[in-house]
Amino acid sequence: MGVEEITAEELNTEKFIEEQIRKISETVGEGIAINALSGGVDSSVVTMLGHKALGKKLTTYFIDNGLMRTGEPQGVELEFARFGVRVLIIDAKKEFFNSLKGITDPEKKREAITQTFYKKVFSKLVIDSGAKYLLQGTILTDIDETVAGIKRQHNVFEQLGIDPQKAFGYRIIEPLIQLRKDGVRKVAKALGLRHDRMPFPGPALVARVIGVITPKRIELIRKATAITEDELADTGAFQYMAILHRDRVTGMRDGKRVYGLQIEIRCWDSIDARTATPTKLSYETQRKLADRIVTEVPEVVSVTYNITPKPPSTMEAI
Amino acid sequence: MGVEEITAEELNTEKFIEEQIRKISETVGEGIAINALSGGVDSSVVTMLGHKALGKKLTTYFIDNGLMRTGEPQGVELEFARFGVRVLIIDAKKEFFNSLKGITDPEKKREAITQTFYKKVFSKLVIDSGAKYLLQGTILTDIDETVAGIKRQHNVFEQLGIDPQKAFGYRIIEPLIQLRKDGVRKVAKALGLRHDRMPFPGPALVARVIGVITPKRIELIRKATAITEDELADTGAFQYMAILHRDRVTGMRDGKRVYGLQIEIRCWDSIDARTATPTKLSYETQRKLADRIVTEVPEVVSVTYNITPKPPSTMEAI
Repeated sequence: MGVEEITAEELNTEKFIEEQIRKISETVGEGIAINALSGGVDSSVVTMLGHKALGKKLTTYFIDNGLMRTGEPQGVELEFARFGVRVLIIDAKKEFFNSLKGITDPEKKREAITQTFYKKVFSKLVIDSGAKYLLQGTILTDIDETVAGIKRQHNVFEQLGIDPQKAFGYRIIEPLIQLRKDGVRKVAKALGLRHDRMPFPGPALVARVIGVITPKRIELIRKATAITEDELADTGAFQYMAILHRDRVTGMRDGKRVYGLQIEIRCWDSIDARTATPTKLSYETQRKLADRIVTEVPEVVSVTYNITPKPPSTMEAI
Repeated sequence: MGVEEITAEELNTEKFIEEQIRKISETVGEGIAINALSGGVDSSVVTMLGHKALGKKLTTYFIDNGLMRTGEPQGVELEFARFGVRVLIIDAKKEFFNSLKGITDPEKKREAITQTFYKKVFSKLVIDSGAKYLLQGTILTDIDETVAGIKRQHNVFEQLGIDPQKAFGYRIIEPLIQLRKDGVRKVAKALGLRHDRMPFPGPALVARVIGVITPKRIELIRKATAITEDELADTGAFQYMAILHRDRVTGMRDGKRVYGLQIEIRCWDSIDARTATPTKLSYETQRKLADRIVTEVPEVVSVTYNITPKPPSTMEAI
């Protein structure tokens, strides 16, 4: 069974919201539902739709994997509190750091995060909650060129490590399956949610660290990211980021030669991320940014700025 | 026995040159002498002084270690040809690449280069030539806080792997021992030599490669260095360089995701290299430089520009 696309242009947000609320409500009935909120626009919209449809029959979890930016879990909690939505924050930092131990291959890092999320953390919440309805923020782009319908649901259970035999009775609800990102942003706006945030990768700060992932290296890139987002907030750029390199370079600290860390800054001008050019930052902005990083994150002795367009570069480094 | 410094201010270049020519001539007498020319200002000045003092009694070798910039061996040969000085180019690429195989530690790379130069290549030339007089471009800065005189000569024999017992009869001649770099540059100018060249590290392009050294990686940084020196020649900067990183980053080539190489550009404004700031290059200069590198060196998908001052950075990365 195929999925009928609703383009952003033809989307009537008011009608869409009403319809999805009604469908969720009808599907769940007197049951209970569960969803995981990441803070991204897709899961935020699903959380709001679910809340409007189900109220207290929906439990929304925010899984703190320890890989987020400064204040992100609290920021998400606060944003939803103003709509009366209670978000339960689950501390799963240990599980995620353990699963990432020693891995340097970017694909394997992504896989470790996905596996830990589904198989270790979320599946336990699903089972313990007793909920039979899962709300998911899948969008059309996620299933492009793949199958829709029943087979997809099998996939979700597989990811959760739930035996499809035992999954009898579970239902996956995907209210955004007909939309693409621009459509979801329109719905977010209509719901009063923040909808203009900078894109941020799924594997969070792990996508900004070359080499092994440790709590210390994540804390370091978290600090550099906070400084970068602070200093570049007024640029109007499409996306900006700090990247922790694995290569060390010589530096001077207290008059002594040290072998220190490097941070690369990327700041992109782009319409749709398909092509992009480095933002023309002033010399002063670049110098201030570098000075703050080497001062506030003293393990870092070198900061560089990307000057390559995409292609042949890509937005993210890994 | 100490060495009496001659400062650049008090240096009378004409008198100095005359005196050193006389001393070399008196010391060598009817013997034969040998020296290694690297193309740097110290060994260039020594070569000219030796040539003026000894003519054909001096043999000057240029050891091509395969780690130099584009056209360097030929450039040095040509520069001295115009003074009637014949430079013998010795192809020792294999010896140097073999000694560097698999080494990633920067200190060990430097040590491998030094050992190969003295113990494997130059010592053979010294012995085979039958010359008992070695001209060396040692300057006062090289021996700061170390011993002068006979003990130093022991060190040189040790470096050459020549038993000090058997070294009886060998003489090391160091005409520049009383000068520092600024003094040497004054003498170079007076001799009609190029004296205003950008500083370049002893380990040559090896100092510009993070990670293992292979002929392929050296060829790659050689190309990037040539482009960088070409594009930044008019900046009037103190020093500029390209650095090949070990970390790979994602890129796009022919519409496909690749895991490509990164080049970092550093361009420094400085008086004396003790402190330095990144040169304020125009956006267009940076973009043109990056575009040329990713086009002419297609293994590279990302180019960055250093925005950190020294300290906490250093001029070179390794």
